Amino acid sequence: MRFVEKIVRSRQFSGFILLVVLINSIALGLQTSPAVIEATGDLFFIVDKVCLYIFVLEAILKISVFRLGYFSRGWNWFDFIIVFCSLIADFEVLSSFRVLRIIRVFRALKFISGIRHLQIIVTAIGHSLPSIGWTSLLMSLIYYIFSVMGTMLFAEAFPQWFGSIPKTMYTLFQVMTLDGWSMDMARPIMEQFPFAWLYFVPFVVISAFIVLNIVVGIVVNSISEVSMELSAMKRPEGDRDRKVAEEIDKMRKILDNLERSLKGNR
Amino acid sequence: MRFVEKIVRSRQFSGFILLVVLINSIALGLQTSPAVIEATGDLFFIVDKVCLYIFVLEAILKISVFRLGYFSRGWNWFDFIIVFCSLIADFEVLSSFRVLRIIRVFRALKFISGIRHLQIIVTAIGHSLPSIGWTSLLMSLIYYIFSVMGTMLFAEAFPQWFGSIPKTMYTLFQVMTLDGWSMDMARPIMEQFPFAWLYFVPFVVISAFIVLNIVVGIVVNSISEVSMELSAMKRPEGDRDRKVAEEIDKMRKILDNLERSLKGNR
Amino acid sequence: MRFVEKIVRSRQFSGFILLVVLINSIALGLQTSPAVIEATGDLFFIVDKVCLYIFVLEAILKISVFRLGYFSRGWNWFDFIIVFCSLIADFEVLSSFRVLRIIRVFRALKFISGIRHLQIIVTAIGHSLPSIGWTSLLMSLIYYIFSVMGTMLFAEAFPQWFGSIPKTMYTLFQVMTLDGWSMDMARPIMEQFPFAWLYFVPFVVISAFIVLNIVVGIVVNSISEVSMELSAMKRPEGDRDRKVAEEIDKMRKILDNLERSLKGNR
Amino acid sequence: MRFVEKIVRSRQFSGFILLVVLINSIALGLQTSPAVIEATGDLFFIVDKVCLYIFVLEAILKISVFRLGYFSRGWNWFDFIIVFCSLIADFEVLSSFRVLRIIRVFRALKFISGIRHLQIIVTAIGHSLPSIGWTSLLMSLIYYIFSVMGTMLFAEAFPQWFGSIPKTMYTLFQVMTLDGWSMDMARPIMEQFPFAWLYFVPFVVISAFIVLNIVVGIVVNSISEVSMELSAMKRPEGDRDRKVAEEIDKMRKILDNLERSLKGNR
Repeated sequence: MRFVEKIVRSRQFSGFILLVVLINSIALGLQTSPAVIEATGDLFFIVDKVCLYIFVLEAILKISVFRLGYFSRGWNWFDFIIVFCSLIADFEVLSSFRVLRIIRVFRALKFISGIRHLQIIVTAIGHSLPSIGWTSLLMSLIYYIFSVMGTMLFAEAFPQWFGSIPKTMYTLFQVMTLDGWSMDMARPIMEQFPFAWLYFVPFVVISAFIVLNIVVGIVVNSISEVSMELSAMKRPEGDRDRKVAEEIDKMRKILDNLERSLKGNR
Repeated sequence: MRFVEKIVRSRQFSGFILLVVLINSIALGLQTSPAVIEATGDLFFIVDKVCLYIFVLEAILKISVFRLGYFSRGWNWFDFIIVFCSLIADFEVLSSFRVLRIIRVFRALKFISGIRHLQIIVTAIGHSLPSIGWTSLLMSLIYYIFSVMGTMLFAEAFPQWFGSIPKTMYTLFQVMTLDGWSMDMARPIMEQFPFAWLYFVPFVVISAFIVLNIVVGIVVNSISEVSMELSAMKRPEGDRDRKVAEEIDKMRKILDNLERSLKGNR
Repeated sequence: MRFVEKIVRSRQFSGFILLVVLINSIALGLQTSPAVIEATGDLFFIVDKVCLYIFVLEAILKISVFRLGYFSRGWNWFDFIIVFCSLIADFEVLSSFRVLRIIRVFRALKFISGIRHLQIIVTAIGHSLPSIGWTSLLMSLIYYIFSVMGTMLFAEAFPQWFGSIPKTMYTLFQVMTLDGWSMDMARPIMEQFPFAWLYFVPFVVISAFIVLNIVVGIVVNSISEVSMELSAMKRPEGDRDRKVAEEIDKMRKILDNLERSLKGNR
Repeated sequence: MRFVEKIVRSRQFSGFILLVVLINSIALGLQTSPAVIEATGDLFFIVDKVCLYIFVLEAILKISVFRLGYFSRGWNWFDFIIVFCSLIADFEVLSSFRVLRIIRVFRALKFISGIRHLQIIVTAIGHSLPSIGWTSLLMSLIYYIFSVMGTMLFAEAFPQWFGSIPKTMYTLFQVMTLDGWSMDMARPIMEQFPFAWLYFVPFVVISAFIVLNIVVGIVVNSISEVSMELSAMKRPEGDRDRKVAEEIDKMRKILDNLERSLKGNR
């Protein structure tokens, strides 16, 4: 068991896993080309299977070494779920559904858990999410109100865009990205409902404003974090200040003693 | 009356109101589906009515408890206006206008006055508005000048876009969002007026610049607010500095005394 | 003359001028409507003329009072040029050119020189321009290189977009704003030149990067200005520090004296 | 040799080279116009050749003066590669390929190495790249995963957009710029695959988020650099603080001496 632990903890092991992830990712890409598939036959499907079983083995080895400690690290969960879903999606019965084969692609995400720097970035992005949580709730509320309004107003005349709440929500997402919102959507609608701009223009302005708010929140957060680190780096100065204060305190005591002794002298 | 006040001030009461807002919002969403309406009959209309009367009751209870103090809080005004408008829009005579039914949707905005964090965000956005006030005035001025110019130049040839000042203003808003401004608008116009780009390109550049200015204003505002809070947190250090200064002052006095006494000694 | 100076310097005078600007602006807007023109006849043209002569009178009065000092203020130049151009454009001979009538619209810009806050914003925007000057030069260079390349490559096949350097420059401006750059332009071109994406994608990325650089420059500039003002506000603390240093200096001298005198004592 | 060095190092020499770059750039632009070519005959091709040989001469002179030191400066490499490629592309045999003639246009890039301020900006942009390196890697990973998925899902039904991995990558770049992503692409696809929005909306959100992250990284980087410079400018204060601390240290010693001597006195 000692020996297995040594292997699992070694840099060579994680390097090897990264290499397998890389091979698997390239294989997945090549499989999309009919020409490649024809030329190589079953090769890539075998590569795919082998890579999957290596990942399963990795998980088993790690669990056997770290036991329950394995599940105390978030990134292990991340790996475990990816491999577990791949495994399930790989069963013959299920793989008749074409969409399920796509789950294999997510194995490339193991790059994130395998490269320290990517872990850091994803964690940082994850940490910035709560700060925008309430703004997102506000966003959802505005979204919902406009969705209900849009469906009420335009469902009959323009069912392809506003036929139901989910359809309207998708349409509003498109409007938020400003893609063809006016030329291809608002203008045709305004020919029938001349006041439709009262629906579109406020939505564009409000959603732009809330998105701006989210962006500002993230920028300010990052800056204040950096400036806190900077001021923490300045602490040495603070140390010197404290020392000066202590020094002065001692001097004060000496002077007091001096004064008293001189008074006694007199 | 004491009893009513206790109820109104309780967390259970505001929780219950939030629940009613939630139910009402979901009901409003479901009403947009013809299938749901057919299956449930009048159910949702009754739910709607009941929710409205609960909100009316909430307002009456709060006013009876806080009296004029009710109107000294902005968010109470917010609630009051929403409920009042809903009530008016609900009268039989008026509800024949389909558009007025939409006012009911705004009841979902009561989420904002009901959840503390949303109140804070909306207030913060509101506070950032005055700082962009004058920039908005400049924006409006530029807008107006380009609207008059656009209408003068293109009203005859392209009435669908530049037929009147309001039409041109809407068109300029579209140009500002960059949706199809060149491919679907400026290029067809330039076939007739080859120098039309002298109108569109400056507008795109100037409006982008002013929008950028507004964004920068909001970012800088937020950052300076945060940095003020940070420097306020550092005040303890300032306290120590003041203490050191006082200490030194006292030492100075002792030394002066010492000097004088020693001189007298001599 | 004293009397005239008093008038020119009075708040009522600038208020009156602002009012005339407002009336003139509204008149210009209303003139775009054929219905209004028909109903009012020559009214608005007379209003227009009167407003112009009031502006001319304003300039004459100010020059007669401040003489050459008038031209030492930038905003007076601004006013002077607007009025002067309006005057020239108003001569019968010239006004047969429809485009020249548009110059009248620029009179609404007198709002900027008339309202203090707008002056400040425009001045601030003007001050931020030099900081982006060299980045703009770089931008122009990239623009020029891509224009020459685009014209060389696509002039024959797509003359409507890349027929000449100016046409290509306009097209590149459109690509920079991302309006229909791929769906309506790059894709049709790629059907003939499959490697056209090597032209479009780098241009989109590079121009986005330079624009980002300009934006960052403006943001950082604004923030460092604000933080400088903030640190200037903190000067009082610096004052206290200097005072403490002086105090300590004096104490040092007293102590030196004490030591010497005590040594003499011994 | 001394004489040549003097010339190469003179401001007149670099000014002359800049002038040649300018002339060459204008000549390249004019060559795109068939009318100009017809009117001037071979003139511009001669200008082009002469400019190229001047650049070659410049490189030879500089290398003969600075020898290997020439290649220790990045910007010399930049110049050298541009001229070298131009030279190769100019050989008769090769210039039958029209695309290779485009390489001449890159000579205008010599402006960057010739103007100090442009050098600084490009260097600054270059320095900001490493800080976004890992985020770009994450971006590429997400890109790759979505490319493979997109090709797997839509290759058969929409080969013009998702026919192969490179085609899908180009399409995803277009989606990232939000150009016609919904109106012209996602909506037609959703008619066949109603759940295609599960592919497009997450990609738009994730790519927007990562781009935002890159932008925030650059902004924060620039700000922290500026604030470091600012705090470096404040160092004088730090100097004074150190002086005060030393002063106090000396006073302490004097006082200690005094105390001891007074005790001895008693």
